[in-house]
Amino acid sequence: VSGLLGWDEQVQMPPGAAELRSQQQQVLAGVLFEKETAPELGALLQKLAASPPEGVWEKAVVRDATRDYKRKTALTKELAQREARLSSEGYQAWVKARSSSDFSAFSPVLGEWLALVRERSAAIDPSQSAYNVSLDGFERGMTTSRLDEIFTEVRNGLIPLLAQVKASGTAPDASWLSGDWDVKKQAELCSAIAVEMGFDLNRGRLDVSVHPFTGGAGPSDVRMTTRFKAHDMTEGLTGAVHETGHALYEQGRPGGEVEGLPASSALSMGVHESQSLLWERCVALSRPFAEYLLPKLRATFPGQIPDDKTPEDLYRALNVVSTRSLIRVESDELSYPLHVILRYELETALLAGTISVEELPAAWNAKMKEYLGVEPENDAQGVLQDVHWSAGAIGYFPSYSLGAMMAVQLFDSARTDLPTLDADISAGRFAPLREWLRAKVHCKGSLLPTADELMVSATGSPLKPAIYLNFMRAKYSDIYALST
Amino acid sequence: VSGLLGWDEQVQMPPGAAELRSQQQQVLAGVLFEKETAPELGALLQKLAASPPEGVWEKAVVRDATRDYKRKTALTKELAQREARLSSEGYQAWVKARSSSDFSAFSPVLGEWLALVRERSAAIDPSQSAYNVSLDGFERGMTTSRLDEIFTEVRNGLIPLLAQVKASGTAPDASWLSGDWDVKKQAELCSAIAVEMGFDLNRGRLDVSVHPFTGGAGPSDVRMTTRFKAHDMTEGLTGAVHETGHALYEQGRPGGEVEGLPASSALSMGVHESQSLLWERCVALSRPFAEYLLPKLRATFPGQIPDDKTPEDLYRALNVVSTRSLIRVESDELSYPLHVILRYELETALLAGTISVEELPAAWNAKMKEYLGVEPENDAQGVLQDVHWSAGAIGYFPSYSLGAMMAVQLFDSARTDLPTLDADISAGRFAPLREWLRAKVHCKGSLLPTADELMVSATGSPLKPAIYLNFMRAKYSDIYALST
Repeated sequence: VSGLLGWDEQVQMPPGAAELRSQQQQVLAGVLFEKETAPELGALLQKLAASPPEGVWEKAVVRDATRDYKRKTALTKELAQREARLSSEGYQAWVKARSSSDFSAFSPVLGEWLALVRERSAAIDPSQSAYNVSLDGFERGMTTSRLDEIFTEVRNGLIPLLAQVKASGTAPDASWLSGDWDVKKQAELCSAIAVEMGFDLNRGRLDVSVHPFTGGAGPSDVRMTTRFKAHDMTEGLTGAVHETGHALYEQGRPGGEVEGLPASSALSMGVHESQSLLWERCVALSRPFAEYLLPKLRATFPGQIPDDKTPEDLYRALNVVSTRSLIRVESDELSYPLHVILRYELETALLAGTISVEELPAAWNAKMKEYLGVEPENDAQGVLQDVHWSAGAIGYFPSYSLGAMMAVQLFDSARTDLPTLDADISAGRFAPLREWLRAKVHCKGSLLPTADELMVSATGSPLKPAIYLNFMRAKYSDIYALST
Repeated sequence: VSGLLGWDEQVQMPPGAAELRSQQQQVLAGVLFEKETAPELGALLQKLAASPPEGVWEKAVVRDATRDYKRKTALTKELAQREARLSSEGYQAWVKARSSSDFSAFSPVLGEWLALVRERSAAIDPSQSAYNVSLDGFERGMTTSRLDEIFTEVRNGLIPLLAQVKASGTAPDASWLSGDWDVKKQAELCSAIAVEMGFDLNRGRLDVSVHPFTGGAGPSDVRMTTRFKAHDMTEGLTGAVHETGHALYEQGRPGGEVEGLPASSALSMGVHESQSLLWERCVALSRPFAEYLLPKLRATFPGQIPDDKTPEDLYRALNVVSTRSLIRVESDELSYPLHVILRYELETALLAGTISVEELPAAWNAKMKEYLGVEPENDAQGVLQDVHWSAGAIGYFPSYSLGAMMAVQLFDSARTDLPTLDADISAGRFAPLREWLRAKVHCKGSLLPTADELMVSATGSPLKPAIYLNFMRAKYSDIYALST
């Protein structure tokens, strides 16, 4: 219900209802909290712990319900109130700091958040590091020791690859994708593509909102939104495919007796992101998809695509690497993980106390130079660019890149299992890939307790950075004609 | 929140979400019931009864909260469950009975409802008749003795007037309003009219649904819907004006400190209906409105309105009285109250036990002949035409006609207070009337305890059937050239 109200708010709510909506959401959150932390629920879980159920789904439901109950009841009322207050104050301080590009206006709030996250983590599980407990809220079962292993390998692979791409002195011509693209036609084209990918309009809606997102109320009511800009067709298109990936996961989550129970949830933020990124990057940014897409673009925008352009030209134009990537949300797929790893290294250091809040901007700029070869001119374009820390979301960033890596590894396995995958994609036959994902990922919900175990089940191996790095090296060596 | 989910369900919900939505509404109803019947609330109300607050609004809030609490807690769990079961069974039995036009398939359920309504009424207030208690749930403070007084006078006035109209052997030409009217243009025209009437899009939305209704979440988020048919422009137009009347009441209900408290509610079903009917019948079916509307129709549907048609022709075409009115929801404003009075007389007799369920169809047909001069050919077109009794809504029908009478009486007072009212309407200046209604009706919420007291406050007198009958006689004597 809360998801539907949130969707309504972003898509269609009359502006004058904003205050009422905030009250409605607060009341619902209060009711939900009462139910989630009810002593009766705790007593039932204790009974189940003493005599666990037999079935694998039943076991997973009890496991997740116990975990949720523990995390929810760990917070004292005082802690929850401080958190609510800090969320509101943090956002305001961040907006102000960013607009004046003045980190010192944000640093006190960040300091308070670090203290609160340490306290909250200790309340939930004092046997783990504060970062691990916070991270677990977004990416179940993930730890800093495993992340260090993964991110070190990825960082060491991507930094030289990115340098090589930049040094190549060449780039695909993407200028013909600039222009004036009718927004309504873009929306119609992308709706058609979403439906061809398998988005089920019987169990979901597709609308337009300022910030594209996928929400709603679970498998039978998925509300997906998109956004289109006249001058930038690529953003609307890749955004729509990205959200469709999320939406297919949502529509594929387990139904029947498990529907609505904890184990039917998405496994983690990273797994959710793997589904959007697999469709966005491994499918929509691929050569076969360019063959599928180019005739559609020609039909949708008659006369606007130069006659001499080939699917190969489209493929290359969609895969330009930025030579100067300052902002995470605007970055290409090669630069993106380095933005994330930088944030991960800084937030773990902050929480562990090995760097201070005051040292953060300098540390940020130094890492930007080292990893991405650019330095922000000011804090607004640097350390203040993301909203996450202002909401205390520490341990959130890693999921983005874990998702990107899972996507590549899943796609790699799907290609082995589906020998005609490329031909299918270029012909617009997305059902084989979608059904493969449905069976291997969507319908598992959070039956398996970690993303690594899901990857073993789906691909035969836990997350392997080498698979991801090989994919990136092969793709960009080809596009940028690098010597390998 | 429940209102928003209900709106979403009728306007845009993906069909596959129906079962989930029903679960969501059940859960919300359960949470609401818990809060509404919480012993803590009862204890607080007892404290307030012992030392009542000073202000008039505070007093009204305590009065209504006490009333709601009493009505809600009167129901035992067993009674509530029987009611829920009977609602579902009753609807199914009614659908089946109507489709086979077989009253005997519905009569057992109706018998059960009568027993339940008696039991429920006795639990709520044993000092009142069952009908009065049930009626009070829709029309606060109304009683059978007052209704008998009102409805007898109206019936005795309308039956001969209707007979005269039919005997006149003449009728306005409405054939030119048939045709093929672009549905999208109808919708645009009616949106524009709703906004000119004062519907505030900052605090509401206007959409299309299969059954037009006004709902949402109160003054700052009013969701109004309309429906348009290509062959019948009149229905869409009057329906849109009708719903705008409801919506203006909703947007005008008290805000500020009273918002959301019991006394900010609409006073009764009848008062709500008075607002929709005032705009639909006293405004949209008037001569001045025809002057406002005709140029708009010509501009919206170029070439579709014959050149020789005048505002007077439009006024007359919109006010045709049916010579054969069998179905309440399709009836004209002159026949409508007789349909309602017939139902009122029958449902009071059923509940009092002066007629039996088995005798109902014959009693129905006899009254149809006596009041409206027509006899249904079968039960589907007769006693089974309305859904209300299948849901146990006994005491609901009177509100429709009380609303129609209040509308005329309010409009009559407004005309006295606003000497330029007719000229304002023909010029599309609806603000004076709207602000008059806002001050006299909308912003009162349920400050006053009965509709009669609201009428005294707004018009100087309780509901007076004579005002309504004079209006009807004058209007139809003119249109049908009756000898008066």
